[in-house]
Amino acid sequence: MEPKEFKSSITERRKEVLASLGSLGAKIYEQIDKGYFPSIEMPSRSTENIYYDQKFRQFILGDKKVKRSARNIRHLKPFAQLVWTALFSYELTSQRKTSTLRDVYYSAQAYEMTFKDQQESNNIITDLETVLGFSREDFNIFPEERSAVFGDLTIRYTVPGYEGKTLNLTSHPDGVMIGPALTSSEFVETSADKVIAIEKGGLFTRFIEENVHKKFNALLVLTAGQAPRATRHFIRRLNKELKLPVYIFTDGDPWGMHIAMVIISGSANAAHLRDLTTPDAKWSGVWATDIVNYKLPTDPLDDIDMKRLYELQKDPRYKEDPLWQREIKTFMKIRRKAEQEAFSRYGLTYIVDEYLPAKLEETK
Amino acid sequence: MEPKEFKSSITERRKEVLASLGSLGAKIYEQIDKGYFPSIEMPSRSTENIYYDQKFRQFILGDKKVKRSARNIRHLKPFAQLVWTALFSYELTSQRKTSTLRDVYYSAQAYEMTFKDQQESNNIITDLETVLGFSREDFNIFPEERSAVFGDLTIRYTVPGYEGKTLNLTSHPDGVMIGPALTSSEFVETSADKVIAIEKGGLFTRFIEENVHKKFNALLVLTAGQAPRATRHFIRRLNKELKLPVYIFTDGDPWGMHIAMVIISGSANAAHLRDLTTPDAKWSGVWATDIVNYKLPTDPLDDIDMKRLYELQKDPRYKEDPLWQREIKTFMKIRRKAEQEAFSRYGLTYIVDEYLPAKLEETK
Repeated sequence: MEPKEFKSSITERRKEVLASLGSLGAKIYEQIDKGYFPSIEMPSRSTENIYYDQKFRQFILGDKKVKRSARNIRHLKPFAQLVWTALFSYELTSQRKTSTLRDVYYSAQAYEMTFKDQQESNNIITDLETVLGFSREDFNIFPEERSAVFGDLTIRYTVPGYEGKTLNLTSHPDGVMIGPALTSSEFVETSADKVIAIEKGGLFTRFIEENVHKKFNALLVLTAGQAPRATRHFIRRLNKELKLPVYIFTDGDPWGMHIAMVIISGSANAAHLRDLTTPDAKWSGVWATDIVNYKLPTDPLDDIDMKRLYELQKDPRYKEDPLWQREIKTFMKIRRKAEQEAFSRYGLTYIVDEYLPAKLEETK
Repeated sequence: MEPKEFKSSITERRKEVLASLGSLGAKIYEQIDKGYFPSIEMPSRSTENIYYDQKFRQFILGDKKVKRSARNIRHLKPFAQLVWTALFSYELTSQRKTSTLRDVYYSAQAYEMTFKDQQESNNIITDLETVLGFSREDFNIFPEERSAVFGDLTIRYTVPGYEGKTLNLTSHPDGVMIGPALTSSEFVETSADKVIAIEKGGLFTRFIEENVHKKFNALLVLTAGQAPRATRHFIRRLNKELKLPVYIFTDGDPWGMHIAMVIISGSANAAHLRDLTTPDAKWSGVWATDIVNYKLPTDPLDDIDMKRLYELQKDPRYKEDPLWQREIKTFMKIRRKAEQEAFSRYGLTYIVDEYLPAKLEETK
């Protein structure tokens, strides 16, 4: 099945997920009714079937398929595990309970379904994503990591006990958590005209204190390092549903650069999914050239940093825009990295007063 | 100066912090006026001056003092650094801006004050804590890590732009972040009669979904692993100001056990401070004996886990209550550990329906 683009409302999407799980079950029943061994077919996720797609500006899966059949004794266990995972996901989604990857692994034991280890159970969940074209967050399996958001956006909850209630995301000046309730909410109203995603908690707090949300009409998203998938999906929704441009601020090193890239173009691991990327989002800094131009305090790039730069240089995602190659080359040349907090050398508010407006303009 | 017990209101406390910084400055001026080389004296934080105190049920500093004098050429740099840090802290606190350890390190450059590295700047901040008896969060230097809270507690903000505004902490069902705005708020009203602190995000979400806050009249705090100091201080305030008993739920392993212990009795690193502990809080599970009694799915304890258990066995904090020694011995005997999610083997809601009420009763 083709991965789903995010178009429908949250409630409709939940119905689609349930319908999709139901039809998977119906197909299996049908095969059994007809006297066949039931089987499930899905796109292969092996490396040679992963391509970078310029239209979607992300990795996608090619035409190779794999089939799990109850006829094949080696397939029998993963087939049963996949069907159980679909059942469990259906229960979660219809009862509107959320779960984690870890929980699913242990829950299997309540059904006398065995997984060798956590990795095996995670793989089967990814299989189910591939079969359905929905991501696990759609069937209520959430990551452990948490990030946060702040700014003038009013949301309307769809989770049990809160249906129809609204919250304005400026209500708590430390930010509200991005969890299942937030990501499943509908967007009601915003005065913001952009989204600023920030890697680090310290800077997120500084931006709130300095009223960046007001001065720049921005919604502020704290990714807290590599953005969890739910947060990437949330950023995509802000971009697609509210038509807000997205600017990403990270540390000035290969790891920060890649945090931005994964928000923009996703990861190879999610080549079977479509709604975790924001191709038009911009990496606004800290660039290697910013380190030079702003004379920032730096640390040397170590061997692991350099190795990472060589990997990124060859990555198709980094060939989309000449900006990336230029910055990679500059990093390699100066062999230095700088953190977002490095701007404090010019005073605590310099980053908000000088750097931020300059970079928003430059990457518009 | 003796570490400060938390007694006063937030606004008064801020005044005390500023007065304390002011009087430090005044003392230095006075010494210079009288023609002396200025000096600052503080309790020594070296290992041989750290004692476990049974009254406070935490580590404290002994009577040994160290002196930093501008007369001693080797002291001159740390003396200047300490005075600068006091100045910067005064600016932060009086302007009500927050900062991070990292920010302080870089900010020094704006004043042409040099620190060799981050560690040197962190040490000087701890010196300032020791001199004043206030913790760095009191002078607005916050950690990067974030945790969260959910439940029926109405708070009143004291941060600029939000003074006097209130928020009920059930407003956002994913939880609100514990940051500078939350920790500096006043507590207005609560219907809760206990606090439940939880190590992991997945369980925190499960507890909210299963209405633990209503069923058990509880405020839920997510520590997100080892609780950041601001969160430990917040838990202490809930316990001291609102007289709420605190129950802590962690993974069943030496690391989870120690997360609970640090909330209860603090760390040796904070022996110079008094308001980060909650001595009456209870570690309610997952105990080693729970692993046995509830027949939980487990993983083996590895060498690092075992080494940690031997360390904890000798730690004075673990000699306070026979419970700790019993659990350490049981871990050593069964050589197994279990995560909180392991209860999912009995169904997703078992932990809330069966385990939680049993353990709250047992550790009352």
